[in-house]
Amino acid sequence: MVSAPARLPPSTESEPLAAYYERVRSTTVALAAPLSAEDQVVQTIPEVSPTKWHLAHVTWFFEHFCLLTHDAAYRQFDDRYHHLFNSYYYTVGEMHRRARRGVLSRPTVNEIHKYREHVDAAMLKLIERRAGDPDFDFLVTLGLNHEQQHQELLLTDIKHVLFVNPLGPAYRAEAAPPPVHEREHDQRAHEAPAGLSAAARLPAAPADPMTEQTAPIRFVEFEGGQFGIGAGGDGFCFDNETPRHRVLIGDYAIANRLVTNGEFRAFIDEGGYDDPAIWLSDGWARIREEGWNRPLCWSENMTREFTLNGWRKLDTRAPVCHVSYYEADAFARWAGARLPTEAEWELAARDSDVEGNLLESGNLHPVADRDTMAASSEIGQLWGDVWEWTSSSYDAYPGFVPLAGSLGEYNGKFMCNQKVVRGGSCATPRDHIRASYRSFFYPHDRWQFFGFRLAKDL
Amino acid sequence: MVSAPARLPPSTESEPLAAYYERVRSTTVALAAPLSAEDQVVQTIPEVSPTKWHLAHVTWFFEHFCLLTHDAAYRQFDDRYHHLFNSYYYTVGEMHRRARRGVLSRPTVNEIHKYREHVDAAMLKLIERRAGDPDFDFLVTLGLNHEQQHQELLLTDIKHVLFVNPLGPAYRAEAAPPPVHEREHDQRAHEAPAGLSAAARLPAAPADPMTEQTAPIRFVEFEGGQFGIGAGGDGFCFDNETPRHRVLIGDYAIANRLVTNGEFRAFIDEGGYDDPAIWLSDGWARIREEGWNRPLCWSENMTREFTLNGWRKLDTRAPVCHVSYYEADAFARWAGARLPTEAEWELAARDSDVEGNLLESGNLHPVADRDTMAASSEIGQLWGDVWEWTSSSYDAYPGFVPLAGSLGEYNGKFMCNQKVVRGGSCATPRDHIRASYRSFFYPHDRWQFFGFRLAKDL
Amino acid sequence: MVSAPARLPPSTESEPLAAYYERVRSTTVALAAPLSAEDQVVQTIPEVSPTKWHLAHVTWFFEHFCLLTHDAAYRQFDDRYHHLFNSYYYTVGEMHRRARRGVLSRPTVNEIHKYREHVDAAMLKLIERRAGDPDFDFLVTLGLNHEQQHQELLLTDIKHVLFVNPLGPAYRAEAAPPPVHEREHDQRAHEAPAGLSAAARLPAAPADPMTEQTAPIRFVEFEGGQFGIGAGGDGFCFDNETPRHRVLIGDYAIANRLVTNGEFRAFIDEGGYDDPAIWLSDGWARIREEGWNRPLCWSENMTREFTLNGWRKLDTRAPVCHVSYYEADAFARWAGARLPTEAEWELAARDSDVEGNLLESGNLHPVADRDTMAASSEIGQLWGDVWEWTSSSYDAYPGFVPLAGSLGEYNGKFMCNQKVVRGGSCATPRDHIRASYRSFFYPHDRWQFFGFRLAKDL
Amino acid sequence: MVSAPARLPPSTESEPLAAYYERVRSTTVALAAPLSAEDQVVQTIPEVSPTKWHLAHVTWFFEHFCLLTHDAAYRQFDDRYHHLFNSYYYTVGEMHRRARRGVLSRPTVNEIHKYREHVDAAMLKLIERRAGDPDFDFLVTLGLNHEQQHQELLLTDIKHVLFVNPLGPAYRAEAAPPPVHEREHDQRAHEAPAGLSAAARLPAAPADPMTEQTAPIRFVEFEGGQFGIGAGGDGFCFDNETPRHRVLIGDYAIANRLVTNGEFRAFIDEGGYDDPAIWLSDGWARIREEGWNRPLCWSENMTREFTLNGWRKLDTRAPVCHVSYYEADAFARWAGARLPTEAEWELAARDSDVEGNLLESGNLHPVADRDTMAASSEIGQLWGDVWEWTSSSYDAYPGFVPLAGSLGEYNGKFMCNQKVVRGGSCATPRDHIRASYRSFFYPHDRWQFFGFRLAKDL
Repeated sequence: MVSAPARLPPSTESEPLAAYYERVRSTTVALAAPLSAEDQVVQTIPEVSPTKWHLAHVTWFFEHFCLLTHDAAYRQFDDRYHHLFNSYYYTVGEMHRRARRGVLSRPTVNEIHKYREHVDAAMLKLIERRAGDPDFDFLVTLGLNHEQQHQELLLTDIKHVLFVNPLGPAYRAEAAPPPVHEREHDQRAHEAPAGLSAAARLPAAPADPMTEQTAPIRFVEFEGGQFGIGAGGDGFCFDNETPRHRVLIGDYAIANRLVTNGEFRAFIDEGGYDDPAIWLSDGWARIREEGWNRPLCWSENMTREFTLNGWRKLDTRAPVCHVSYYEADAFARWAGARLPTEAEWELAARDSDVEGNLLESGNLHPVADRDTMAASSEIGQLWGDVWEWTSSSYDAYPGFVPLAGSLGEYNGKFMCNQKVVRGGSCATPRDHIRASYRSFFYPHDRWQFFGFRLAKDL
Repeated sequence: MVSAPARLPPSTESEPLAAYYERVRSTTVALAAPLSAEDQVVQTIPEVSPTKWHLAHVTWFFEHFCLLTHDAAYRQFDDRYHHLFNSYYYTVGEMHRRARRGVLSRPTVNEIHKYREHVDAAMLKLIERRAGDPDFDFLVTLGLNHEQQHQELLLTDIKHVLFVNPLGPAYRAEAAPPPVHEREHDQRAHEAPAGLSAAARLPAAPADPMTEQTAPIRFVEFEGGQFGIGAGGDGFCFDNETPRHRVLIGDYAIANRLVTNGEFRAFIDEGGYDDPAIWLSDGWARIREEGWNRPLCWSENMTREFTLNGWRKLDTRAPVCHVSYYEADAFARWAGARLPTEAEWELAARDSDVEGNLLESGNLHPVADRDTMAASSEIGQLWGDVWEWTSSSYDAYPGFVPLAGSLGEYNGKFMCNQKVVRGGSCATPRDHIRASYRSFFYPHDRWQFFGFRLAKDL
Repeated sequence: MVSAPARLPPSTESEPLAAYYERVRSTTVALAAPLSAEDQVVQTIPEVSPTKWHLAHVTWFFEHFCLLTHDAAYRQFDDRYHHLFNSYYYTVGEMHRRARRGVLSRPTVNEIHKYREHVDAAMLKLIERRAGDPDFDFLVTLGLNHEQQHQELLLTDIKHVLFVNPLGPAYRAEAAPPPVHEREHDQRAHEAPAGLSAAARLPAAPADPMTEQTAPIRFVEFEGGQFGIGAGGDGFCFDNETPRHRVLIGDYAIANRLVTNGEFRAFIDEGGYDDPAIWLSDGWARIREEGWNRPLCWSENMTREFTLNGWRKLDTRAPVCHVSYYEADAFARWAGARLPTEAEWELAARDSDVEGNLLESGNLHPVADRDTMAASSEIGQLWGDVWEWTSSSYDAYPGFVPLAGSLGEYNGKFMCNQKVVRGGSCATPRDHIRASYRSFFYPHDRWQFFGFRLAKDL
Repeated sequence: MVSAPARLPPSTESEPLAAYYERVRSTTVALAAPLSAEDQVVQTIPEVSPTKWHLAHVTWFFEHFCLLTHDAAYRQFDDRYHHLFNSYYYTVGEMHRRARRGVLSRPTVNEIHKYREHVDAAMLKLIERRAGDPDFDFLVTLGLNHEQQHQELLLTDIKHVLFVNPLGPAYRAEAAPPPVHEREHDQRAHEAPAGLSAAARLPAAPADPMTEQTAPIRFVEFEGGQFGIGAGGDGFCFDNETPRHRVLIGDYAIANRLVTNGEFRAFIDEGGYDDPAIWLSDGWARIREEGWNRPLCWSENMTREFTLNGWRKLDTRAPVCHVSYYEADAFARWAGARLPTEAEWELAARDSDVEGNLLESGNLHPVADRDTMAASSEIGQLWGDVWEWTSSSYDAYPGFVPLAGSLGEYNGKFMCNQKVVRGGSCATPRDHIRASYRSFFYPHDRWQFFGFRLAKDL
């Protein structure tokens, strides 16, 4: 699910490493806080991991890759956890089967919190001694970025657990988020991790915004040529973003905003799920087999959707969410367009500030956007809301070189059968995403916050 | 899993109905008490239900069949629970899919305890008003017998949950039960429900009993003839025990005790699992497919077994446990014997007092028996320890007539593909079992406390 | 599928052993004659074996159990055939997987016919030398009865192959069989094996018999008591019919005829497949899972059915066919009746001559019966037409003792999870069936000629 | 499996269209000629189609897309064939399920040959009338290229059918092909379709060539830059080869020959299948699940391999064959190299004549090559022998535009989850392959003639 990182210099922020460590680690705990112990055990499908597994796995990462290798005095909390909380690092030993994570009632949530505290105490001492050593700083930064990836998975996984429950419980019982995203609110909100500071997330919404309309998509044109893509600066990045390299891109146009619920419902109403001519062969087979006829989390009558705030009226102006690549691709073909490549997306996004409906906004759901509701000629909604499916297969960049050792051993091991998604979602921490960031999923996956925008050849 | 009961007069005990109700209901709560919330959510295989589902389902039974039909003033705790906690009463509505009980994190354990309290309060008031009405008394007695069946399932299901966990957690952390069952201890112990009164369960064990040997099985002979079997008295019984009817039985001999772990290990050592000649065709297919080569819960090296008290040294003198019908049948063929029919078993047991290693002994595991370790010519270990596989298919008795209405509608619906087991186990409440009691499982089931004794033609 | 036989004296018929051998062997060849080579390769479901597999397997039986053990000079045709054509005799070696018989294009049909000729030549020489030796005679008789069982399977299996083909090809292109069975036709027809002598099978049918009506079922009453059942004479029988033993039977009534297509259609029209109250639990699960809503081989609109003569108008007066035990059982419960036990069936049939719509009639399909269309108080349609589901689980008779050696080793190995069917079908050779004959299938099986009659307690 | 073609001008060859039609059509018949009727029915895995299905499907293509649309007088042979022999053109109607092609015994092989003759007669008349009309010529050329793709599939599918048969039958009983490919033999042989002219395929082999050694791989270097790839000339091509477009390629080196059996065996001997570090995640899961530990068609002891000529000694100098993408990729990583991209392959091949061990050589198996056995600095074995896995995901070329109508409707529908293979195999007709030709398969597929060559960054 998560690629191991490249050995690049860690981010040189104003924030000391210990503070950075504590901030990320405490955010994870805060995200799990609204949940009952029972919620944290369940696995609904093989892709979904229990909350308590996430809490333990990210901790195991620090224990295994930092403490056991850099702290001779470290005493393991429980040596059997290695088997339980290793995810896919085959070279460091066999692990508990992924699809069976939900059969483990023990360790309990409380025991896992003790495990976290044990590791945190040791890590903070170790950071005190070792911070400044670039290799060590890199490992910690890597572990924290890894943990941020699992913060997002924790939210999307628990959303699935709550969604399949006929009682339709909400992740949190608070007031609804604002139905429309406005840029200035972001500025105030982005320090507050979700679940921690409800006040910051609740600006006064405009009077009855649901009556406002969304202007049609505008396509913004780009001239082709040779461009550099991939990570090239001195901040942290994952290795799959490297090496930075040149690509040839033809002239193209890309939509100024994401496809909305309303547009996707029109696709359904006009028989989108019944016309084999617009589907990939594997996609057609999948929707038939699974009986898919609408996005995951939509009610059968397509007027409501399940959110982390519980069941809500479907906002036709908000970005469509929880669609597979197959559905995004079929919609694009139906619309006479196509999905952008990842290079086209990166080119369109590279000069845009990372700002939008990200984790810190506290919405935990894609929302309509004030700017794109108008027929803006600027490209909006690049960051947050939903990960955007691109047409690009998740392949290695030319010259890609894996790290040495266990961490690097599997850098490219997911580079087959998956598609690249870009831009982060409403569950992605703001300091985790960037223009060169590549995430990747199977084309049939739907449980993440997946949406898409259209593109065209010129 | 559990057959609906016959409309027979309820048991006329010295215990008033309200006291009976409170005793059974509180035992269920006591049995779940040692468990964490996390333990109570997990479903490891479709046959296993989460603890909290058991706690709620038996409560739903009283709510649906007593309160909603006999108490006009009753206010439902949550009307969505009907869908979640109905087990298999199709005529009263659709239900949540059995194999997916483990994906439900809500309602939480606490909410289910509130549900229990809500129903108990209403039931006790209703009992106060209605006790003495034979129909009502029957319904309550039925609900309590139903709950006792789920007490046993609660224990066997949680045992499976704990067993598959690599941490091997014990259901309870108390001192080990006595390794050898002695009759007089029963007398003192049988009032104390498991998990409640540890002192009563811990008599002084004889010095190093593990060195004592078990005498070979003796076969006790019975002359054939025409006999009555089935329930005929005036106590409570389930409808599958009726009608009492006459059967023809030939001369036969039945073992004075259960087959032991030591004997089963000898079967394995001599290639029992490798010789197709002694297996039923479906049994051979099953062990190949599943890779079975020893009883469930045995360690790979066959020296230890998992119990509700955690991993323990395998006691070669104790009854073998957690074997399927296929394994019992293969052992019997290998031993030059056969399994008894249910009529043969009932005939051998009908004059025996219900006394043995039942739930109240607190062992929660089959144990070696002082009397049968000697070459007793009396038939021992009939009650408790393990349910005994019989060779009888679970069919209707001649003249079997189902009850009217929803309860009776499905009386015979499990009478296909299953085998009768007899005698109760170490997880069966003593006042729940009797000579005519028929329980039934698929021949491949292993997760219950299943064992067997041998029989022979004369 | 087919139980190994008991070591009983072979049938002492007027027909010499060599003639008997040639008659049965040539019937098998005649039954396969209408088929193309392509037809003889296909396996549609695991239960169905390709025609050429049947042709070879029954030959392998003679090669393995007669020639290789009784003829030192015998030279094997191809020693690799042992692996391919052994069916389930595990103790004589591993075999090709049953569900994969349809992937074998070789040996070709022609090669298998050469194999048959090779074995036949050797067998006839051996019979010349050894006939009269009771052990040898028994083995040959056993092999021929085994081959007759596969004659029926050959027909039912090829019926399934042709049925699933959208082209709906007929097994044979001849004129339709008479729509109504009349007793005297049997007398003339029963020497002619199906497919050999069309003339014998085509008596003048009465003018427009389809307009005739069937009188309602009459229940014929039997007084209960102690009766002997099982094979007791000196003719050939399979070991599962032994030992003859006494059973207790209560008063009962049994239908004078089979349930008809018209009656089964009424069951469907009145919602039989939609009412869980009348189904066994496993049956309800099965029909939901498979989407069954009518007998196998019926057209969706229930006006036509597929037969070995191709698609035909459904004769409402003919016995219903291709229903599982679950469907028969549900119909009986819906009708306020039950299925007979095998003992009740045998008792009702024991004094009846074996005469009816069997293989020799050449119909290869159940037909309406002149006698039972009238409200006869005689029990009709006992022999042929369809195997009748009984409520009896396929268990060992008391005192059942398996044969020694490989043949006997698996005598009882199918005695689990199956139900007894009685009376033979339109694909059963007349000299193969008798009152004590027990065949057995899984309760979900439908591809054989399965039907049923009703019974009642008195 | 097979992409629909682009609307490009048909090949303008010296061969008239009718002659071209007859040549390709008769080659298909010749390829099926060595097979029994039984061979032509079997489907071993969903990917494999029966021979007779291929014979009919390619004929249906002409009937459906040429005759029914261009010949008003045409009378369909059997209108039910449309359902049976449509492969995946969903917009022209529902079709028989792919995985169930092997359950169809009818139409027989003879009937299908009659179908072919019926369509051929009509086609030749139509060609007489319409040849010269570019649209019509294109359709016929497309149909013939489609048929050539199925010629290859016919051979690879029947190879699988024969391979899984324990009898190990050969496709043809002729003398072995030459163990070493020499360039001049090609010149004489390439007119003779396989199976037709054995003499042409049997040059005198050098004395004991198996003792000769293969020189180590040499990497041939290419300077990077901007290059055009894709079809750009005026010959026939499929639409997935278009549009021709420019790509950026870095400096790279590509192996002068294919990886051999000997090299792959060394990979196995050194634990290649046991080291998760060198496998893609999906590949590791696949080999564990399937138990793969060597190429398909190798004997367990790795000294023999199954070929269309039956079981043969494994030639360590010949190209390894029947490996999945996962295995090719793992080998490359183990060898410190990588697979080439499709652009790198095309660039290396674009100036090379199409000459090699193709269908016309009659070998029907990859063979060692005289030229590459020496340490040639020329790139050899580009054409024929085995399709070469590239690292490229099968995606649309930039600007790819599908054809209008049913043929074009699904042009891109396979562009997901598959990998591009290049260069054709020993079962590919010589006039069917070219430098821009893109075939594509799932990364787990193994039943085609799949091999690979290595590449490296510089």
